Amino acid sequence: MDYKHRFIEDHKRIDPYIHCTPVMTSGLIDEKGGCSIFFKCENFQKMGAFKMRGATNAILQLSKEKLARGVVTHSSGNMAQAVSLAAKSIGVPAYIVMPENAPSVKKQAVEAYNGNISISGNNISDRQQAANKIIAEKGCAFIHPSNDIDVIIGQGTAAKELLEEIPDLDAIITPVGGGGLLAGTALAAEYFGKNCKVYAGEPINADDAYRSMQSGRIEYNDHPDTIADGLRTNLGDINFPIILKYVEEIIRVEEEEIVAAMRLIWERMKIIIEPSCAVPYAALLKQKEKFAGKKVGIILSGGNVDLTNLPF
Amino acid sequence: MDYKHRFIEDHKRIDPYIHCTPVMTSGLIDEKGGCSIFFKCENFQKMGAFKMRGATNAILQLSKEKLARGVVTHSSGNMAQAVSLAAKSIGVPAYIVMPENAPSVKKQAVEAYNGNISISGNNISDRQQAANKIIAEKGCAFIHPSNDIDVIIGQGTAAKELLEEIPDLDAIITPVGGGGLLAGTALAAEYFGKNCKVYAGEPINADDAYRSMQSGRIEYNDHPDTIADGLRTNLGDINFPIILKYVEEIIRVEEEEIVAAMRLIWERMKIIIEPSCAVPYAALLKQKEKFAGKKVGIILSGGNVDLTNLPF
Repeated sequence: MDYKHRFIEDHKRIDPYIHCTPVMTSGLIDEKGGCSIFFKCENFQKMGAFKMRGATNAILQLSKEKLARGVVTHSSGNMAQAVSLAAKSIGVPAYIVMPENAPSVKKQAVEAYNGNISISGNNISDRQQAANKIIAEKGCAFIHPSNDIDVIIGQGTAAKELLEEIPDLDAIITPVGGGGLLAGTALAAEYFGKNCKVYAGEPINADDAYRSMQSGRIEYNDHPDTIADGLRTNLGDINFPIILKYVEEIIRVEEEEIVAAMRLIWERMKIIIEPSCAVPYAALLKQKEKFAGKKVGIILSGGNVDLTNLPF
Repeated sequence: MDYKHRFIEDHKRIDPYIHCTPVMTSGLIDEKGGCSIFFKCENFQKMGAFKMRGATNAILQLSKEKLARGVVTHSSGNMAQAVSLAAKSIGVPAYIVMPENAPSVKKQAVEAYNGNISISGNNISDRQQAANKIIAEKGCAFIHPSNDIDVIIGQGTAAKELLEEIPDLDAIITPVGGGGLLAGTALAAEYFGKNCKVYAGEPINADDAYRSMQSGRIEYNDHPDTIADGLRTNLGDINFPIILKYVEEIIRVEEEEIVAAMRLIWERMKIIIEPSCAVPYAALLKQKEKFAGKKVGIILSGGNVDLTNLPF
């Protein structure tokens, strides 16, 4: 299916609710990478991450009747904040299922955006069950963090904006966790790029997407032990076929490579990015020869970190 | 004397060597401050601070003969890096006197910009003596970090750019240490603003500039014990008369107010600023009533921090 028209329409529709984030560059970062890098700063997006785009897009697709009943998601991370803030901006109630072990700072952020929190058990079936209960009671719509075409297109608008600003990119690299950002970016590059290839960076300690690309079916992580906390999840049946068709390659990186890339971006670019967000630049440094002399876009996915618990 | 024409000429001359830094805003930061705040992000300036502007301007005023012999400064901080990088960009040698106790990370930064380091004793007369020796030997020009009209005008180009982008600012707040940025900003507001008042924030633990404004003569700090390490120095006889004439008021803040403002900017704006740089926003929060409902510019002076030694 061709989503190009939907991309254009949806981007217009979400535009009043999101920031068109800046594109930043750094001479030293380019020098180390051996290419020209254009960072799309979604760490400066509302609520601090690209997830605001997908959440807003998914909510705006609902009918008026559906909207009035509100939306629900389960998340301990950025999607909880994204759905809360998007719902607040649009003026509908948001119900957020958060696991018992979610950090209190994340709960406070959701409350600040007027999200109604329900606490569930920590595993995924507890969380889904708690969400289903709310859906049954309130009749509200479930917003999936990554495996939903509206969410995928919403996340892809970051790459669309980047290509509008730098049209002749040879490549774009994103992180890959649940697959929404990667699939959306791959579609955006297909529709709005000029032979722009899409790559992803993934922690070797949570390399389910890499293995899925090898085997041709969705693989899972048993014990995803990585500092890149946004990338511990697995792909879904809606985003995986898009990734399989349009993504060039997934490049795996070690934990220390992630921390080193994160530190370099903090020190040299003076911007705050979360560990997941450093993975694409770490991937570029790992396979420099692939990008030598090229124009490369990197989606800096988010900047929500706990400043009292940094890896350096 | 009217420096307006010099501002315009000098700004053009330094333009190829500096970044026109972005202006950033944040809804939550505005809400907390009770006014509209426009942050001029000199933390994104080359070498990470506004000092690049003044150093470049001072060097470009030298005659060809003088230039060939190089430049010298003494500094343990941002000015050492600024003079090194500016001299490197312009293609002249830089001699940097650094005190024995300067952190090795600062020395490495100067070396990375091709600065020739001489180590001196730690007190100011040791440092000046070492610089004088180099001047006598090499015939090179001394660049003062703040008490020099070329440096003052160079630093003021940040406010000039800010006023070109947001012409109707009611006020601009800068930090005050040596006084170069504050004096330059005051002149820029006088020439390029529309009744734009200039304020400074200063740590109460190093409030020499506040006391100087009261007494009408340059006062000093005996033991300036503040986290805002860029603001421990005193005013000079060239910038003080400008400050006395054009600056509205100096607002003093406590150490914990500086750290809280710094943390808020890191967490909400996702940008890295050094402690000195948080002082103007802390000052605004301290005297909110003064700025209520107004359009306020803040010069974010720099982003060079040691990530392994943060106050939170």
